[in-house]
Amino acid sequence: MSNNKVYNFASDNAAPICPEIIEAITGENHGPALGYGNDDTTREMEAQFRDLFGCDLRAFPVATGTAANVLGLSVMTPPYGAVYCHKLSHIEADECGAPEFYSGGAKLVLLEGENGKIDADFLDDKLARSGAGVVHHVQPSAISLTQVTECGTIYTPSEIKAISRIAKKYHLGLHMDGARFANAVSTLGCEPAEITWKAGVDVLSFGATKNGAMSVEAVVFFNKDKAAEFEFRRKRGAHLFSKARYLSAQLKAYLQKDLWLRNALQANKMAKKLADGLSSCEGNNLHFDVEANMIFVTLSETVIEKLEQAGFLFYVMGPRNEGMVRLVTSWNTTEDEVDIFLNFALG
Amino acid sequence: MSNNKVYNFASDNAAPICPEIIEAITGENHGPALGYGNDDTTREMEAQFRDLFGCDLRAFPVATGTAANVLGLSVMTPPYGAVYCHKLSHIEADECGAPEFYSGGAKLVLLEGENGKIDADFLDDKLARSGAGVVHHVQPSAISLTQVTECGTIYTPSEIKAISRIAKKYHLGLHMDGARFANAVSTLGCEPAEITWKAGVDVLSFGATKNGAMSVEAVVFFNKDKAAEFEFRRKRGAHLFSKARYLSAQLKAYLQKDLWLRNALQANKMAKKLADGLSSCEGNNLHFDVEANMIFVTLSETVIEKLEQAGFLFYVMGPRNEGMVRLVTSWNTTEDEVDIFLNFALG
Amino acid sequence: MSNNKVYNFASDNAAPICPEIIEAITGENHGPALGYGNDDTTREMEAQFRDLFGCDLRAFPVATGTAANVLGLSVMTPPYGAVYCHKLSHIEADECGAPEFYSGGAKLVLLEGENGKIDADFLDDKLARSGAGVVHHVQPSAISLTQVTECGTIYTPSEIKAISRIAKKYHLGLHMDGARFANAVSTLGCEPAEITWKAGVDVLSFGATKNGAMSVEAVVFFNKDKAAEFEFRRKRGAHLFSKARYLSAQLKAYLQKDLWLRNALQANKMAKKLADGLSSCEGNNLHFDVEANMIFVTLSETVIEKLEQAGFLFYVMGPRNEGMVRLVTSWNTTEDEVDIFLNFALG
Amino acid sequence: MSNNKVYNFASDNAAPICPEIIEAITGENHGPALGYGNDDTTREMEAQFRDLFGCDLRAFPVATGTAANVLGLSVMTPPYGAVYCHKLSHIEADECGAPEFYSGGAKLVLLEGENGKIDADFLDDKLARSGAGVVHHVQPSAISLTQVTECGTIYTPSEIKAISRIAKKYHLGLHMDGARFANAVSTLGCEPAEITWKAGVDVLSFGATKNGAMSVEAVVFFNKDKAAEFEFRRKRGAHLFSKARYLSAQLKAYLQKDLWLRNALQANKMAKKLADGLSSCEGNNLHFDVEANMIFVTLSETVIEKLEQAGFLFYVMGPRNEGMVRLVTSWNTTEDEVDIFLNFALG
Repeated sequence: MSNNKVYNFASDNAAPICPEIIEAITGENHGPALGYGNDDTTREMEAQFRDLFGCDLRAFPVATGTAANVLGLSVMTPPYGAVYCHKLSHIEADECGAPEFYSGGAKLVLLEGENGKIDADFLDDKLARSGAGVVHHVQPSAISLTQVTECGTIYTPSEIKAISRIAKKYHLGLHMDGARFANAVSTLGCEPAEITWKAGVDVLSFGATKNGAMSVEAVVFFNKDKAAEFEFRRKRGAHLFSKARYLSAQLKAYLQKDLWLRNALQANKMAKKLADGLSSCEGNNLHFDVEANMIFVTLSETVIEKLEQAGFLFYVMGPRNEGMVRLVTSWNTTEDEVDIFLNFALG
Repeated sequence: MSNNKVYNFASDNAAPICPEIIEAITGENHGPALGYGNDDTTREMEAQFRDLFGCDLRAFPVATGTAANVLGLSVMTPPYGAVYCHKLSHIEADECGAPEFYSGGAKLVLLEGENGKIDADFLDDKLARSGAGVVHHVQPSAISLTQVTECGTIYTPSEIKAISRIAKKYHLGLHMDGARFANAVSTLGCEPAEITWKAGVDVLSFGATKNGAMSVEAVVFFNKDKAAEFEFRRKRGAHLFSKARYLSAQLKAYLQKDLWLRNALQANKMAKKLADGLSSCEGNNLHFDVEANMIFVTLSETVIEKLEQAGFLFYVMGPRNEGMVRLVTSWNTTEDEVDIFLNFALG
Repeated sequence: MSNNKVYNFASDNAAPICPEIIEAITGENHGPALGYGNDDTTREMEAQFRDLFGCDLRAFPVATGTAANVLGLSVMTPPYGAVYCHKLSHIEADECGAPEFYSGGAKLVLLEGENGKIDADFLDDKLARSGAGVVHHVQPSAISLTQVTECGTIYTPSEIKAISRIAKKYHLGLHMDGARFANAVSTLGCEPAEITWKAGVDVLSFGATKNGAMSVEAVVFFNKDKAAEFEFRRKRGAHLFSKARYLSAQLKAYLQKDLWLRNALQANKMAKKLADGLSSCEGNNLHFDVEANMIFVTLSETVIEKLEQAGFLFYVMGPRNEGMVRLVTSWNTTEDEVDIFLNFALG
Repeated sequence: MSNNKVYNFASDNAAPICPEIIEAITGENHGPALGYGNDDTTREMEAQFRDLFGCDLRAFPVATGTAANVLGLSVMTPPYGAVYCHKLSHIEADECGAPEFYSGGAKLVLLEGENGKIDADFLDDKLARSGAGVVHHVQPSAISLTQVTECGTIYTPSEIKAISRIAKKYHLGLHMDGARFANAVSTLGCEPAEITWKAGVDVLSFGATKNGAMSVEAVVFFNKDKAAEFEFRRKRGAHLFSKARYLSAQLKAYLQKDLWLRNALQANKMAKKLADGLSSCEGNNLHFDVEANMIFVTLSETVIEKLEQAGFLFYVMGPRNEGMVRLVTSWNTTEDEVDIFLNFALG
């Protein structure tokens, strides 16, 4: 690897912008347009979301996944509320307390569950003992699940419905962190509606940045009641862009001609190929089924070192000598890159 | 105007991205880069800021002007603090309470002053009666001034120093909202340092979006003590971009070859030309001296209507029959556009 | 004044507890009672409030006037809301930002108005220009007025109704800070209902501490919709007392046999006597009509010094040489004390 | 039990005020005193705390245990901080999110540990993996432990020191929720200093309400640096009492002639007697060692019902058929009451 090439298996957000989206940005760049979303591109983008989900909805562009999650949640919980989520969820572990900040201090209640998924029975039991209505305790207000999960696994439609039934039983909102929503739909082969509003999801963070966009996610409200409040909270959170058309243009291109699914499919395929290769070698334990574009695998320290020296970017989770490695593929990961990686890893 | 052309005098943020900056975005789009600002482009951008201001500093990219202001202020005031600002300031009037949100509920104390500028004597008197040290009252913590002001006027270096002396007298931080900082420097013809750290400014919102960028501002810390806290607050505010390099690339291009000053100069020149034309006609009262790229002028209802029908975008402030019009020029406003406007306005 | 007696004209909260209320506390002290308001005394107290106001309502005891105000307001405004109040109001000037804290960062919009009262026309005009519905601006949510005002003046029923009409016009809640509510009712000679719910007040801070109680105020909800939310916010604010019965016992005694009105009457009478005496002497300018138990008067530095040396407690507001003195009478202020004061002040 | 007598084993906060303290309140009730703690009683109270702990300190009265905890913690953590506490702790389970509210949205990180005590090794491991310094994660700021724990157990001095060593290792503040501090000292027979500042505690909630006071706790700062900030936060939290002398008077009486220890001793002795009696009968499982004044015991549904009908107040924790009963003794629990209880429970 004399050419100092760097191979990205660190994160899908370390990948560049895909061609169709960078073209959409440059294509948007003509003439004036009123700021703050009062432009045609933003209106067209929202219409595309209605088509995609086959229902009436509101869709708002924001620039980061954390913004999408916490602004969405902020209209689903009072400050004295509790949001139930998996203990490994991004909102708990990787947002520096942004959910608490945006909700005015609500509590995240952490749930157990295998493969990064909320266990519906555990959730039900936890809610039964939550102290709802009792003034000493924070009040259950919402459930948040992540699709694809932080372990790279995917909730099936029926798993989502099981959680949705519990949400309804306790009168809670249902939020989905869909930072890798495209990767989930690509694997499931379902309609987006099936794992969202038809399964009881109220608010969706519809990710794009990790799958080829520059910096945009949509907050999708299937229940429009809270959309007006959202707009004030977005501005107040400093997340309303003056030149919003450049966010909307990214989303428009992302949805056109199934770009979002094509990008995700490529990433998923490369992850599968990588996982198959790794597991062909005895001793390489995959920690979870590889259902999307993330792999958690134990490698020996020797192999880790060899890969790093060869220019592969990836994260070692936890103490180095435990050897737990996370590999993430992206819209632009190639078969060649995977082959080279496997060569080093198995060689 | 058969061609339905739209002429933007509504806002500098309604203008598109300037060519050098959109090229920088596309130019950045190759290969992987670690996220969250751990990339070379971001490091180079920060070095450029050190050169520009001729001192050690920290500079962080964020995507909106409100984010720059309120994240900067959030490390300058405790929740029980008070930020002193002009009653017309953007942080008071146009950020939907974002300063209160990010500071955990600090109070903005509103100041009088002609031409949108804080009156130093008024400020001194207000602070003398602030109840500092007394537990019943919010505690003065910072002063925020806007350069260019919301009235389109500019603080001179000595005016800033006068306010800075008061800040020091009462041990307060000094914040500058420089959403149109380039327009001020362009008019003053001074070094950036002269109206910032050399004049006592601690934290600067260095604007770029209104002056040709897509969506980026820098929060500049001349006092680096609070920079570490800033980083946690930025993430927690959901303003840390995974693909931060595309923000930094915009700033790099913006600073290169004085692009920021060239863009501002053009906008300022066009505003001057427009103001001169308007004031040549009796009865058109300019409300403030036109020192940057904003004009506040009273026009008759007939003229307003004529201009609107001709496709000119601009804002009428307050009741329509009072005829107070705001006109803003941009980096891409042309002499032709100004001439056509004046034709309609004076014809 | 050989006996070093101290005469309190500093504040009605510097007075001790009146006999009936301290007896109520000791009288309450037998046997166990479930905590947090689940006791008979609390239930009986609430029933007394229903009788007093002649309507259905909820009444909750809290221990400080600030707690009453800010907990009441916290259910009347979203974090992105604006509470309109007089610029001299206690919530603005003397609560160290507690309204901002409890509301999650809402803004207080300050109103002008003579004699410490909100000017209805000024309010109407301000609200007409508030930017309601526009995402860049905080959203008007409530109006708060103080009865008795911070200037010692009293809103008439028709003045309250005028403000209430504006509240309704803009769909805002109406809050009354009644820290000295008894003093107002005593002067007006009206039914409590007349200046509260019948005049459009939604939430009342019903004061007792300044008028003979140890430490208790009631938050009275005439509109019960928000009472449940209040209970969570009270607990979360750490203002739910385990031994709540001792708060409720104070309120019970306070309402019994018109104690609240008798105490206020005495304070008001003594203020009137003091004001009459002071104004009999040329040069003693009363700054406001003395309608309750507070006097603002300009005295010479010599007189101020003489009074202080004689053991009188009172506050000089602002710079000493300006001589603005505030005198407050209490439930236990005697004719003798007033005479002695006048002796020194006029002698 | 023909006389409808009610026996309180529900909570020590359901007990009345002890005679010495109610006398102190009435004894305080003479003459005027300046408000907000500017009174002699408050100064004397603070001096007593210095004597008690044998060191320089600041001690502030507040009226509820939750206020003491969350105001103390609010100066120990930034909004992006994390407070480590046992999963059963009062601040997590019974304060309706008050810690999150007062800290501006900090996170409570929940710890495992037998007998309601933080396990030092578990804590150490958790902190080693906390992501300190990494911008995506909340930042460890403080550890809070409860003495007596929510299980009725007591940390030994060496257990506290073990936790304190970890606090120092990670540069964290150490907070103690001492709502039942007296019960712990009474059992341990140690100096108060030994389990507080000498063991590394920075801030102590020193409880009194549960042990005979009406409504008062002291927030004790062994490290005085943060005391000034505390005062602003107390006012802003609406917890600064105008008639603060009545809070301080309670604390003075509480500390005099070891009243606090005598009251706790009685409660502890009665709990021991009760526990001994209950455990003499096979099948009555005590869930934890009874080290203070709380007992957790499994009783049959028949016995529970019999006790309730006989007028005993107590709480059944969780589902009734699981039979987990909490019994709490108080300063005024008598041997007779315990005997009668045992009679019913064992009979």
